[in-house]
Amino acid sequence: MMKNLVIAHGGGPTSVINASLAGAIKELKNKNFKGKILAPRFGSAGLLNEDFIDLTNVSDKDIELLIHTPGSAIGTSRFPLYDKEYEKIIDILIKNDIGYVLFTGGNGSMDTIGNIYKHALKRNYEIICGGIPKTVDNDIALTDHAPGFISCAKFIMQSVSDCAQDIKGLPIHVSIIEVMGRNAGWLAASSALARINEDDAPHIILFPEIPFDEEKFLKLVKEKHEKYKGVIVVASEGLVDKNGNPIVKPIYKTERATYFGDVASYLQTLVISKLGIKARSEKPGLLCRCSSSLVSELDLEEAQLMGKISVDTVLAGKNGYMVGIKRISSFPYKIEPILIPINEVMLNESKFPEHFMSSDKYNVSKEFIEWLRPLVGYPNKVISFVDKSN
Amino acid sequence: MMKNLVIAHGGGPTSVINASLAGAIKELKNKNFKGKILAPRFGSAGLLNEDFIDLTNVSDKDIELLIHTPGSAIGTSRFPLYDKEYEKIIDILIKNDIGYVLFTGGNGSMDTIGNIYKHALKRNYEIICGGIPKTVDNDIALTDHAPGFISCAKFIMQSVSDCAQDIKGLPIHVSIIEVMGRNAGWLAASSALARINEDDAPHIILFPEIPFDEEKFLKLVKEKHEKYKGVIVVASEGLVDKNGNPIVKPIYKTERATYFGDVASYLQTLVISKLGIKARSEKPGLLCRCSSSLVSELDLEEAQLMGKISVDTVLAGKNGYMVGIKRISSFPYKIEPILIPINEVMLNESKFPEHFMSSDKYNVSKEFIEWLRPLVGYPNKVISFVDKSN
Repeated sequence: MMKNLVIAHGGGPTSVINASLAGAIKELKNKNFKGKILAPRFGSAGLLNEDFIDLTNVSDKDIELLIHTPGSAIGTSRFPLYDKEYEKIIDILIKNDIGYVLFTGGNGSMDTIGNIYKHALKRNYEIICGGIPKTVDNDIALTDHAPGFISCAKFIMQSVSDCAQDIKGLPIHVSIIEVMGRNAGWLAASSALARINEDDAPHIILFPEIPFDEEKFLKLVKEKHEKYKGVIVVASEGLVDKNGNPIVKPIYKTERATYFGDVASYLQTLVISKLGIKARSEKPGLLCRCSSSLVSELDLEEAQLMGKISVDTVLAGKNGYMVGIKRISSFPYKIEPILIPINEVMLNESKFPEHFMSSDKYNVSKEFIEWLRPLVGYPNKVISFVDKSN
Repeated sequence: MMKNLVIAHGGGPTSVINASLAGAIKELKNKNFKGKILAPRFGSAGLLNEDFIDLTNVSDKDIELLIHTPGSAIGTSRFPLYDKEYEKIIDILIKNDIGYVLFTGGNGSMDTIGNIYKHALKRNYEIICGGIPKTVDNDIALTDHAPGFISCAKFIMQSVSDCAQDIKGLPIHVSIIEVMGRNAGWLAASSALARINEDDAPHIILFPEIPFDEEKFLKLVKEKHEKYKGVIVVASEGLVDKNGNPIVKPIYKTERATYFGDVASYLQTLVISKLGIKARSEKPGLLCRCSSSLVSELDLEEAQLMGKISVDTVLAGKNGYMVGIKRISSFPYKIEPILIPINEVMLNESKFPEHFMSSDKYNVSKEFIEWLRPLVGYPNKVISFVDKSN
């Protein structure tokens, strides 16, 4: 009898993580896979508790719906596992006659699947392990980008463009828009795609890789405010000072977690109190990563492709690889899937590189726009008469 | 020679305020209006400074683009005018041979157009004045609803639905989503349309009409958290205590304005520090009112209709009316435009009524859902397997 397959989600969900799941299931059906398709309920938690959702007979109609459903339809979790737990997981996998394990996730999940791979090897039990990349903040190394990022970047581009129209017609405040990407500035940077003309928003971008300099920031806000009256600042949620500490004091700390305060709220107060300029904050927060309306078609396609290729890879007996994306050409946009040894992924985190920033580090470079534009496209077309001469 | 027409924007923009402008211009062209079409740049400010944008020859292509552009394409402003300024405005209107003035806005703008009407009468100069309603928070009285509200309500419904999927798959926090509507709970209430099944988010709704009761709120959060683990609270930005004071201390006060702190951020800290439950905040802020992607087709239609009817009204010589919407039937949805004397609008503000709330005041009534559903529809369809039995 054919062995069974486990497909799990790990880490924060995205608007296309279900599309990767759908792509994998479709390929398993297509390949006439005879084993069971089992999804641990809430990721590692379900694995540890032997709590599997049986997706073997999921209908084509449900698969279609799955593609367009944001969040994780099988549940995910976000806690680290230790050796003793991996031992238990291997026991459970053996007991359930699992021959294949796929984990969809970011660096943390690749660490998990890498450890399952190692612990299975040690036990001399063959489990073919594979990784499907998932990210919103684009911090997975060795792949051009990964599913989840494009939709999130598109959400941010379009939101900044929409806000820019709002503020252009009522230029009475500095709007500070906080975006995800605690350790990497890719998402903050993606707001630059909203800018069609030189004077368009965003007017200032704050990256987590660049230590926050209050004096410089306030000087820049003052300049932009004098020039435009309505100003848009895009700030990463993970801004740090020159010592690497978050600029906003944590609200609360427990043994396991830190509860960060809101960066946009902090900067808003700073602008109001230090400059006397009206400021406000927007923090779309989770909306960035779960919008079913602003999901990117390209992202949905690539997410399904990653699911499909990961199935092909493990069914072909190739063990220990994450699927990735290699860009062949930007104009026209062309990619091909690649296989990356999981242990190489685990060691790296992709920061937003300096050559993608402008020289003053408050904006992006032309090179970055050329890198991102083929993925995300342009914001919706708009018209404004406020600059029209009489 | 035919007199000229002024069409202005007042107050905060919406995603469909330009559609009303487009509807008015299309009707003027359709009626073969021979005067100039002039838009004061930035609303009252442009009126006072005799700074008009000439839209007489705007192309059909630009009108189409205008319909789908959020924010105000002619600029708007948000400050009160006094008698001396109205005198000056009448002088400017006479000088520019203006026979018709249309103001698109909320209660404040209806006050402005009402005053222009009165001051013109006093001067024995005939200016036919009309109002086009615009709101996001649905606080304009005597009309079933007004353009801007539907799109904003749709944005909130869909955002809460998307977040609900995110949290259902990773139920580790209480997410507090702050929405607009400082004085009226219509927008907070509209989040209830995201709920398809009884247990779905939003789990708690906080209205500005109901004094915030910290103890009750925390008890409710604790209950919902025990039941669902992942909880969504929707809170109006304008929550007040039992004395009518904002629950969040203002960041800063000037003579002209108060800078409010963020309610979601405040409630997040409360939940974390008092209950030790992980909480986070989302504050889409301006995004609620300017989304070009989640704009409602019905709202776009009605916004254009209001623009059209207002033109018909003033060209027919009917003076001092705001156009409004009368609902004829909900299922099927059917409305007709009505004319409301502007001085009646000016005296009223539409609060979210008690009979649209649930008996405990933390949710809405069935009656409200039946009132709003025909306007906003349903959130995107989704699927989840996390509750599927093994």
